[in-house]
Amino acid sequence: MSKNLTSRSVDYSKWYNELVVKADLAENSAVRGCMVIKPYGFAIWEKMQAELDRMFKETGHQNAYFPLFVPRSLFEAEEKNAEGFAKECAIVTHYRLQNDPDNAGKLRVDPEAKLEEELVIRPTSEAIIWNTYKGWIQSYRDLPILINQWANVVRWEMRTRLFLRTAEFLWQEGHTAHATKEEAMQEAELMNNVYAEFAEKFMAMPVIKGIKTESERFAGAEETFCIEALMQDGKALQAGTSHFLGQNFAKAFDVKFMNKEGKQDYVWATSWGVSTRLMGALIMTHSDDKGLVLPPNLAPYHVVIVPIYKSDEQLDEINAAAEDLMIELKANNISVKYDNRTTHRPGAKFAQYELQGVPLRVAIGPKDLENGTFELARRDTLTKEIIEKDKIISKISDLLTEMQDALFQRAVEFRETHTTEVDTFDEFKKVLEEKTGFISAHWDGTAETEDKIKELTKATIRCIPIYESEKAGECVYSGNPSKRRVLFAKAY
Amino acid sequence: MSKNLTSRSVDYSKWYNELVVKADLAENSAVRGCMVIKPYGFAIWEKMQAELDRMFKETGHQNAYFPLFVPRSLFEAEEKNAEGFAKECAIVTHYRLQNDPDNAGKLRVDPEAKLEEELVIRPTSEAIIWNTYKGWIQSYRDLPILINQWANVVRWEMRTRLFLRTAEFLWQEGHTAHATKEEAMQEAELMNNVYAEFAEKFMAMPVIKGIKTESERFAGAEETFCIEALMQDGKALQAGTSHFLGQNFAKAFDVKFMNKEGKQDYVWATSWGVSTRLMGALIMTHSDDKGLVLPPNLAPYHVVIVPIYKSDEQLDEINAAAEDLMIELKANNISVKYDNRTTHRPGAKFAQYELQGVPLRVAIGPKDLENGTFELARRDTLTKEIIEKDKIISKISDLLTEMQDALFQRAVEFRETHTTEVDTFDEFKKVLEEKTGFISAHWDGTAETEDKIKELTKATIRCIPIYESEKAGECVYSGNPSKRRVLFAKAY
Repeated sequence: MSKNLTSRSVDYSKWYNELVVKADLAENSAVRGCMVIKPYGFAIWEKMQAELDRMFKETGHQNAYFPLFVPRSLFEAEEKNAEGFAKECAIVTHYRLQNDPDNAGKLRVDPEAKLEEELVIRPTSEAIIWNTYKGWIQSYRDLPILINQWANVVRWEMRTRLFLRTAEFLWQEGHTAHATKEEAMQEAELMNNVYAEFAEKFMAMPVIKGIKTESERFAGAEETFCIEALMQDGKALQAGTSHFLGQNFAKAFDVKFMNKEGKQDYVWATSWGVSTRLMGALIMTHSDDKGLVLPPNLAPYHVVIVPIYKSDEQLDEINAAAEDLMIELKANNISVKYDNRTTHRPGAKFAQYELQGVPLRVAIGPKDLENGTFELARRDTLTKEIIEKDKIISKISDLLTEMQDALFQRAVEFRETHTTEVDTFDEFKKVLEEKTGFISAHWDGTAETEDKIKELTKATIRCIPIYESEKAGECVYSGNPSKRRVLFAKAY
Repeated sequence: MSKNLTSRSVDYSKWYNELVVKADLAENSAVRGCMVIKPYGFAIWEKMQAELDRMFKETGHQNAYFPLFVPRSLFEAEEKNAEGFAKECAIVTHYRLQNDPDNAGKLRVDPEAKLEEELVIRPTSEAIIWNTYKGWIQSYRDLPILINQWANVVRWEMRTRLFLRTAEFLWQEGHTAHATKEEAMQEAELMNNVYAEFAEKFMAMPVIKGIKTESERFAGAEETFCIEALMQDGKALQAGTSHFLGQNFAKAFDVKFMNKEGKQDYVWATSWGVSTRLMGALIMTHSDDKGLVLPPNLAPYHVVIVPIYKSDEQLDEINAAAEDLMIELKANNISVKYDNRTTHRPGAKFAQYELQGVPLRVAIGPKDLENGTFELARRDTLTKEIIEKDKIISKISDLLTEMQDALFQRAVEFRETHTTEVDTFDEFKKVLEEKTGFISAHWDGTAETEDKIKELTKATIRCIPIYESEKAGECVYSGNPSKRRVLFAKAY
């Protein structure tokens, strides 16, 4: 556990990989591209899930569950969606193993147990869900349908990284059905706003709300809303997307309804999702060379208490003081872990909790018992102070709020200093290479220019920001007229 | 929605299938054997999950997540487990689709994207998890490991029924690792007790705690604890199992640890699980010919309020009264839905909520406004009474407790009257055919007798009950000496 991490300035990517493993968040499994999410990492994901689930329910959504498998004939029904995912699907072709006649004790696929139609493991569930909605919708009275599911999906990625890009990942996918285009469009934007609120309030991660260019849209969408965040290494990360799907899936699966005027029309759709990728975003927004830094709102526990003792009697006394403190903390909705393992020294424990990003550490030693104090250490600033016993609860409570705000503010400042307006392509390239971050530049609105810039610089248009006034100018690459600036960056 | 269900006495199996679909719990999907769990059904499952998850955490377990896929070579490592599941596995053989050259607009499996090693979709996760634990365990200090995961699993069943037996199902699976045999055995029994407590306190479903005979054990287990429940049609249902796995998986995956004495030993294991099958058990324990009956502790909402009105003014007044009542109910932790849809008549709403098993229904009409009363209807007994406004909260609160108890008591009585001690094989067959239910009978302890009885009667030994005193006797089939009675039944 205790070996130091590679420093971020030396190799950011290596630092990230080491941190994920050493902080006990996740590790690679025996299955190519698939990860094991370890209990500490999963506890953070559970906190995220709980908040998102609450927000979905508050906006009128219900959870449901649809099959893991998509029969090939359904998968291919919506052409663009199928095309977008066909090259990275895991495919079930057989349903039985048998003893290998050539290899005692080994199994092989039973050639006689071949499926008539192959099953695609869902890379996303529009196809299976819209095929189901067909049976649920006859009239406008059956609309809207506002459903979410928490599920695993599989995309056979060739280059994978823990949390950021894995063959199997966990996510939620909302799939809604509406009677009108306007309502569907509003829903898609609403859910993008929910994601933004979650990212900022809970992850303490500032995001830009925007829409994707046509070439960056979800396969099968007519409009993709997104939230884009900036990581510490100056690369952008798409943290969530919400799609207005038009009537594409309704047409592919023949889902019509009788509208209020008594006429048949195709149903309007949205889908929206965030995934365990958010864990990667969380790590790369706040953490440092000592390890994970967690915003208190998502920390599995806010406080860890570590006893410092030389004798068993001392430990007994400290145990009693710790018990009292824990009762008070819990009564104030502050979650706490007491680590009085006798198999590890305090130094090792300090290092572990720094690595794991526990927001606050309370150390209790014999001197503290004498003086009626605690030593309180703050993970984000790595500062310590001595606090009197009767002030500890209010201090901890205040600090948790302060840290949540401070982490957000620090990330906002980082993003502000790493967002650069540029007006020439030379400057564009220079900023991208030297300063990194978001580049705000004029773009002529064509896919050709977008592709060319990507080819030359590896930067993509992350989004066309919403809520920014449109000011015309000239495209940074082509010099052609541009309606407004868009955000470019290299991205995860 | 409103069509009547087939009566239970006419065709229990048909009644069940109709109820599941008409009460909006689940339906069959386009994928053979896989179900769609609809929002109302999923809301009940979420309630179950929340309680179980809390109980697991209270007993020291943490959640984690392991891959969906098991490489064939890992799958086959523990021989008995592999043998037990080999014939019902979905197998991924390819990772890409391509355009079908013979069929424009269609896709086919890309023959060049064949996996070097096939991936089995987990039917259970011992193999992938123990292969992972190998990397986590060196010494007794790393033990115990107490992990649970909530996941989907796939078992390619040929005959499926909604909730009871589906190709894909949702479950939780606990996988623990221990330094000693005793500790692992205690864990296995503890978790069986947790399941029993959950079944009785939340599902209001009485269960018999027992152990399985060798032939009914989980593939790879050395002892299987179980909880067995009795359904209304006199068939038993295995509601949860908890396995002591000995060192079988540790040996198969070479997971050793240094014990306190400094010697290497194999790690001891347990696994335990319950699944969406519990939904089937819940339905078949309490429901009636009118539809679902839910114990209040698992109802998505406790109370539904239905307005009875003739004019818009009346509805406005009722809306106001309903709002007040909802505020009070929520303040008392009673969940409530107000159905003031103008598109449906009260009668249709009454039928819907009866079908969906909402524990209590409050109707508010103009007379109630005048008299300061509500009409309160109870789902389990189908009785109604008029309650004065200022007594409604305490009445509802009391009734919810009373109903939870009454459902449990009714199920206990049913089980008691449907558990029969028999001492001859003729009686055994007669009771099984005519009275149905559990049969308590002596068994000589041999697999031969067990098989023979199963062959002749379709009854299996559901369990050897725990906590019952052992009294010797003679086997109901062979006449050979028997140490104690065991429970037989036909089973789901």
